[in-house]
Amino acid sequence: MPIALVTDFGTRDYYVGAVKGVILSVDPTASIVDITHEIAPQDIAAAAFVLHACYSDFPAGTIFLCVVDPGVGSNRRAIIVKTEDYAFVGPDNGVFSFVLKHSDAVYAIENDTYFRKPVSATFHGRDIFAPVAAHLSAGVAPPEFGPKISDPIMLPDIAPWQIEPNTIEGSVIHVDRFGNLITNLSADIAERRFTLEISNTQISKLTSSYVEAESDDPFAIIGSAGLIEISVKNGSAVEKLKASRGTPITLKFI
Amino acid sequence: MPIALVTDFGTRDYYVGAVKGVILSVDPTASIVDITHEIAPQDIAAAAFVLHACYSDFPAGTIFLCVVDPGVGSNRRAIIVKTEDYAFVGPDNGVFSFVLKHSDAVYAIENDTYFRKPVSATFHGRDIFAPVAAHLSAGVAPPEFGPKISDPIMLPDIAPWQIEPNTIEGSVIHVDRFGNLITNLSADIAERRFTLEISNTQISKLTSSYVEAESDDPFAIIGSAGLIEISVKNGSAVEKLKASRGTPITLKFI
Amino acid sequence: MPIALVTDFGTRDYYVGAVKGVILSVDPTASIVDITHEIAPQDIAAAAFVLHACYSDFPAGTIFLCVVDPGVGSNRRAIIVKTEDYAFVGPDNGVFSFVLKHSDAVYAIENDTYFRKPVSATFHGRDIFAPVAAHLSAGVAPPEFGPKISDPIMLPDIAPWQIEPNTIEGSVIHVDRFGNLITNLSADIAERRFTLEISNTQISKLTSSYVEAESDDPFAIIGSAGLIEISVKNGSAVEKLKASRGTPITLKFI
Repeated sequence: MPIALVTDFGTRDYYVGAVKGVILSVDPTASIVDITHEIAPQDIAAAAFVLHACYSDFPAGTIFLCVVDPGVGSNRRAIIVKTEDYAFVGPDNGVFSFVLKHSDAVYAIENDTYFRKPVSATFHGRDIFAPVAAHLSAGVAPPEFGPKISDPIMLPDIAPWQIEPNTIEGSVIHVDRFGNLITNLSADIAERRFTLEISNTQISKLTSSYVEAESDDPFAIIGSAGLIEISVKNGSAVEKLKASRGTPITLKFI
Repeated sequence: MPIALVTDFGTRDYYVGAVKGVILSVDPTASIVDITHEIAPQDIAAAAFVLHACYSDFPAGTIFLCVVDPGVGSNRRAIIVKTEDYAFVGPDNGVFSFVLKHSDAVYAIENDTYFRKPVSATFHGRDIFAPVAAHLSAGVAPPEFGPKISDPIMLPDIAPWQIEPNTIEGSVIHVDRFGNLITNLSADIAERRFTLEISNTQISKLTSSYVEAESDDPFAIIGSAGLIEISVKNGSAVEKLKASRGTPITLKFI
Repeated sequence: MPIALVTDFGTRDYYVGAVKGVILSVDPTASIVDITHEIAPQDIAAAAFVLHACYSDFPAGTIFLCVVDPGVGSNRRAIIVKTEDYAFVGPDNGVFSFVLKHSDAVYAIENDTYFRKPVSATFHGRDIFAPVAAHLSAGVAPPEFGPKISDPIMLPDIAPWQIEPNTIEGSVIHVDRFGNLITNLSADIAERRFTLEISNTQISKLTSSYVEAESDDPFAIIGSAGLIEISVKNGSAVEKLKASRGTPITLKFI
């Protein structure tokens, strides 16, 4: 089965190699898929979003190994999140905030039978998460790794707030390579009249494609993650709006 | 069969993951090979060159998925380019300019049976190109996807111009990581006496290897893509010559 | 069997694609694993360290293809380093300095039967090392490629120097993405009282995990490669200490 990787390891060190080596040592038949290793160091929210936006495109049975782990070596838990079709392995720090909504069960990883020994204080990606993912891939059942838990950590602020019946306060939750601003406002606003305000700029309609945009003014579009995105034709909304992750965006239905 | 990827998605977003997930969902036996996701955003010419320079090293049967797609969401066509040994899937925007010279047939992709639904306005890499490549890999014949076309788009200026019987006007078509300038002048000049002029610098012989170069002056060498390259020993021709893609280079036979 | 890649090719050019294509053309069953292509251009020592720090996590039988090759086209040798469990293929320039300590035999690569033809002057990664690695993977025995040699090149300074009975002069041998300084001092100092001095900063104890560190002062920790590392909690030791690879570190037992 595929084991798909989301990490902040970057690609110039030995960390990615070590994780892949451990996986293949446990399950030589595993099919390793790089999603990204370029999550900004320790940026849990970015990893949570990237995972959310692509996991459901993978075939049932895929195991996701997600290691953005600023608390490595502390007593933060290690967990397996199980949904109907998938398993997710990583630290219990919010990196699974989005997928937890669809989970059947969450297990704490405690059974060190399945760990690489000795377990270092600094690299649980290699020593705990990689071998657990590979043992899952090889057929070990999730309850073998530890007890069910009911209180996995969720990031605050991943969903927008409704502050009045007709006003929703959202924010930019991801900035992509092309300078698009991906917000936490879902695409279903498309059916009502609205105004969006971000960085003192007002946008009052959805544009249906990049090419339909008529100028270099920022426009709103339903992005491929099913969320409202703010873009600039042949340019960067990040630069045009001086926006970044966390920039607030206000939606008013009118 | 291998499905080899050339994109401008970068590696920090979910785009690469989504494309790989869709491929594996359609054809779980596909062997996904990353060529590059670091084509500069929307740089069609760079993708065309990278593809040209390595595709023939792959085994017969390989499918190339090439997504550099500034026109996504417009009415630009999606195409399959078929050569004797390979298939290429991507937008009809010039990204296949080099390989088209060797093609047997080009098909427009129109049969939405094979698309991921709903098709977004912003991410045809995931919604059209990836599933089509995977269905090709799974054995669907190219004509199943749509009609043959005869007018795929070619980039201008990928071949050098002969301006006099003894003068050829070329240009730099790629700059690599090491600062080498790859031109569109082919290696067969090696058999005649010549002068190359680039950025007011004259070069009149071919150097046979990097180590043979005697100084830090720029030198010409037959590169691994079969094209004349301008290099600097232990340095960067880009910096030394203040050159970049598009910089003209004049070849005179003497 | 896995063929694992360590190169300085970067990821924006065709070099990685060409190498992968050649491998799959020779051995379609090879499982290609990217360790890194982001070794700094021509940085042999960095590649040697990355390889050292992760190779033993791979399953027995893995072949490592390591191409950081500033001497390409010269008469530097091409070699296969064979250990009990692994084979390493690349230039004879010190890139295998660490793994040579564990080798059973080293072979010069001379038999051009196994090369991609014609062999270019600039890209032996594609023309020599990739096909040799793939033929090894396909079952060709190491002696088929050329004679045993006894004098492979070793980098100086990969091991620390003992300058007095109680003083060891080491250095930073790797800087990772997170700003950690990885030294060539091995973890067995943990059992004695000591003082470390680096960049005019003194450290006199080992911290057992990142989270245990109490301030933003630099601290020493046993890293995941089994070496002493200098880190800063929630920060970068590189920036805090103005250190880089080669920065000396002095260890005194007290």
